[in-house]
Amino acid sequence: MGLIGAGIAAGLAALAASIGNGLVISKTIEGMARQPELSSSLRGTMFIGVGLIEAVPIIAIVVSFLLLF
Amino acid sequence: MGLIGAGIAAGLAALAASIGNGLVISKTIEGMARQPELSSSLRGTMFIGVGLIEAVPIIAIVVSFLLLF
Amino acid sequence: MGLIGAGIAAGLAALAASIGNGLVISKTIEGMARQPELSSSLRGTMFIGVGLIEAVPIIAIVVSFLLLF
Amino acid sequence: MGLIGAGIAAGLAALAASIGNGLVISKTIEGMARQPELSSSLRGTMFIGVGLIEAVPIIAIVVSFLLLF
Amino acid sequence: MGLIGAGIAAGLAALAASIGNGLVISKTIEGMARQPELSSSLRGTMFIGVGLIEAVPIIAIVVSFLLLF
Amino acid sequence: MGLIGAGIAAGLAALAASIGNGLVISKTIEGMARQPELSSSLRGTMFIGVGLIEAVPIIAIVVSFLLLF
Amino acid sequence: MGLIGAGIAAGLAALAASIGNGLVISKTIEGMARQPELSSSLRGTMFIGVGLIEAVPIIAIVVSFLLLF
Amino acid sequence: MGLIGAGIAAGLAALAASIGNGLVISKTIEGMARQPELSSSLRGTMFIGVGLIEAVPIIAIVVSFLLLF
Amino acid sequence: MGLIGAGIAAGLAALAASIGNGLVISKTIEGMARQPELSSSLRGTMFIGVGLIEAVPIIAIVVSFLLLF
Amino acid sequence: MGLIGAGIAAGLAALAASIGNGLVISKTIEGMARQPELSSSLRGTMFIGVGLIEAVPIIAIVVSFLLLF
Amino acid sequence: MGLIGAGIAAGLAALAASIGNGLVISKTIEGMARQPELSSSLRGTMFIGVGLIEAVPIIAIVVSFLLLF
Amino acid sequence: MGLIGAGIAAGLAALAASIGNGLVISKTIEGMARQPELSSSLRGTMFIGVGLIEAVPIIAIVVSFLLLF
Amino acid sequence: MGLIGAGIAAGLAALAASIGNGLVISKTIEGMARQPELSSSLRGTMFIGVGLIEAVPIIAIVVSFLLLF
Amino acid sequence: MGLIGAGIAAGLAALAASIGNGLVISKTIEGMARQPELSSSLRGTMFIGVGLIEAVPIIAIVVSFLLLF
Repeated sequence: MGLIGAGIAAGLAALAASIGNGLVISKTIEGMARQPELSSSLRGTMFIGVGLIEAVPIIAIVVSFLLLF
Repeated sequence: MGLIGAGIAAGLAALAASIGNGLVISKTIEGMARQPELSSSLRGTMFIGVGLIEAVPIIAIVVSFLLLF
Repeated sequence: MGLIGAGIAAGLAALAASIGNGLVISKTIEGMARQPELSSSLRGTMFIGVGLIEAVPIIAIVVSFLLLF
Repeated sequence: MGLIGAGIAAGLAALAASIGNGLVISKTIEGMARQPELSSSLRGTMFIGVGLIEAVPIIAIVVSFLLLF
Repeated sequence: MGLIGAGIAAGLAALAASIGNGLVISKTIEGMARQPELSSSLRGTMFIGVGLIEAVPIIAIVVSFLLLF
Repeated sequence: MGLIGAGIAAGLAALAASIGNGLVISKTIEGMARQPELSSSLRGTMFIGVGLIEAVPIIAIVVSFLLLF
Repeated sequence: MGLIGAGIAAGLAALAASIGNGLVISKTIEGMARQPELSSSLRGTMFIGVGLIEAVPIIAIVVSFLLLF
Repeated sequence: MGLIGAGIAAGLAALAASIGNGLVISKTIEGMARQPELSSSLRGTMFIGVGLIEAVPIIAIVVSFLLLF
Repeated sequence: MGLIGAGIAAGLAALAASIGNGLVISKTIEGMARQPELSSSLRGTMFIGVGLIEAVPIIAIVVSFLLLF
Repeated sequence: MGLIGAGIAAGLAALAASIGNGLVISKTIEGMARQPELSSSLRGTMFIGVGLIEAVPIIAIVVSFLLLF
Repeated sequence: MGLIGAGIAAGLAALAASIGNGLVISKTIEGMARQPELSSSLRGTMFIGVGLIEAVPIIAIVVSFLLLF
Repeated sequence: MGLIGAGIAAGLAALAASIGNGLVISKTIEGMARQPELSSSLRGTMFIGVGLIEAVPIIAIVVSFLLLF
Repeated sequence: MGLIGAGIAAGLAALAASIGNGLVISKTIEGMARQPELSSSLRGTMFIGVGLIEAVPIIAIVVSFLLLF
Repeated sequence: MGLIGAGIAAGLAALAASIGNGLVISKTIEGMARQPELSSSLRGTMFIGVGLIEAVPIIAIVVSFLLLF
């Protein structure tokens, strides 16, 4: 029962992180195409945002590893 | 039965935090691309918002750890 | 049977709070980018709104803890 | 059987209240950003609305507590 | 079997009332932001509407209590 | 088996009536905000509409009570 | 097995009639707000439409009563 | 097994007929509000359309009665 | 097992035919409201289309009758 | 097990053919209402399209008959 | 177990081919209504596209026949 | 257990390839209707795209055949 | 249990790759129809993108083969 | 139980990575078609984004391999 739980947790975490990152990065590229002189500022905020988004999915990955062993 | 519950809780928490953060951060980047002179103010509100959003998912992660042990 | 119920309650509470907060905070940031002189008023309403939204999910978290023990 | 019912009731109540509140509060903030001179009137209606919305979810929370004990 | 039915009925009733109220109240706030001189008339209709909407969910709550005892 | 059926019937009836009423009442408020001189006519039609909409959900509530006893 | 079928049939019938009626009545109110001189004609068509829509759900209610007894 | 099948068939038939009729009648009312001089022609087509739409759901209702007896 | 299959087949067939017919007939009424001089041509194509759409659902109804007996 | 499979196959085939045909025929009527002088050409393409769309659902109906006998 | 698999495979294949064909053919008719002088070129591409789309569903139909015998 | 897996794999592969191809081919036809002088270039890219899209579904079909034998 | 897992993995991988590729290739064709002089540059980026997208689905296909043998 | 979990994890990871990459790469191509002089900058950000998005799905793939052996 724990093994299928590990699969669900890992799959949902991957789905979560990819959707969140996809929204942020695609908005960044759209913003850069409009105003190229803001590229460095937007890209900096993008890295912070990706870091914040990946916090909880990575804990879910840890839960998944704990369910495995 | 508790183990699969842990997987569901961790997966939904990751999904929740990523969707919420993705909405807020992508709006911030869109706002910065429009009005670059407000960058610091918008980014400050973004950090507060991310903190508020991640409160409940992290409690759900704690529930998930309690279900594991 | 109570353990999987705890997982479902905690996961749905996290999903609920994150969606609600995400809507409110992203609207606030959008409003601040349009009219920077209203920043403090909008941010004040945002804090009230986040507090009101998190009331019921936190009770659901309490239900989830009661199901655990 | 009652325990998993408690989890479902609490989770759906949290989801319900958060979606309803999120709609009302975000519309309020949007209205305040357009017409700042109506802030107090809109915020007053917002408090009434949040109170009306949270009535039924809180009864559902009570049902959930009755299912627990 | 009756206990899980009580949870489902209470949860769906909460979801129903919150969505219906959320639609009506947010439209009222939007209308007040456009035409402030109609505030009292719109708010009066809002109270009637909320009362009409909550009629059936409250009967569902009664069904839920009957399933509990 | 009849008890869980009662819960499903009551919950769906509440959902049905709230969505239908929510659509009609919010359109009425939107119409009153545009043309205040038609308020009484629109509100009259709203009462007729709410009555017509609640006919079938209330029969479903009756089915739900018959399933209870 | 027949009892849960009765609950499903009654619930879906309520959902069906409410959605159909909600669409028709809200369009009628929208039309009356635009052209008040057509009120009686539109309201007449609305009554015919509501009658036609409620035909099949009421037969489903009859099926539901036959499943009960 | 046949009894729950009867409930599903009757419920889906009611849902089907209501959605189809709702689309057609609301379009008719919208068309009448735009061009009042075409009222009789549009209403005639509406009756034909409602008749055509209700053909298959009524056969499904017959299937449902056959499953009952 | 065949009886519940009959219910599913009949219900889906009713849903299918109603959605398809609803799309076609509502488009026809919309077209007639725009250009009244094309009424007969559009209505003719509508009858052909309704006939073509109902071909497969009626075969599904036949399958459903075969599953009954 | 084969009988419920027959019901699923026939129901999905009916749903498939109706959605596909509904899209094509409603677009044809929309095109004829805009440019009446192209009626015969559009209607010819419509017949070809309906024929191509119904190819695979009819094979699924054959599969359904094979599952019956 | 193989028989219900055959039903699922055939039903999904029919759904797949109808949606794909419906998109392509309705776009073709829309394009022909705008620019009648390109009719033959668009219709040629339509035939190629329908052929390419139906390749994989027909293999799925073959899988379905293999599951039957 | 492998047989129902084969049905699921084949059905999802058909759904996948049809949606992907439908998007690409309908965009191509839309592009050709706007700029007829680019027909050959667009159609060439379309063939490359269809080839790339069908790569993975065809491997899934192979998995499905391996599950059959 | 591993065999049905292989079917799910292969089917979801096919769905994933087709949706991702469909989005990228249809955007490329839309871009080429607007600006024909950028054809080679856009098509080059398209090939890189298709390669990046197909990386993870192909690993999922490998997992599916490992589940088969 | 672990084998079906491996299939779910691998399939969801593939779905996640493909949706995220598809969003980012299609936005990049849209941006390049608008402003060709920014091609290298946008493509650089695209590579960073694809790398960040694929981080969590690849860990989910690792979880899937651990569930296999």
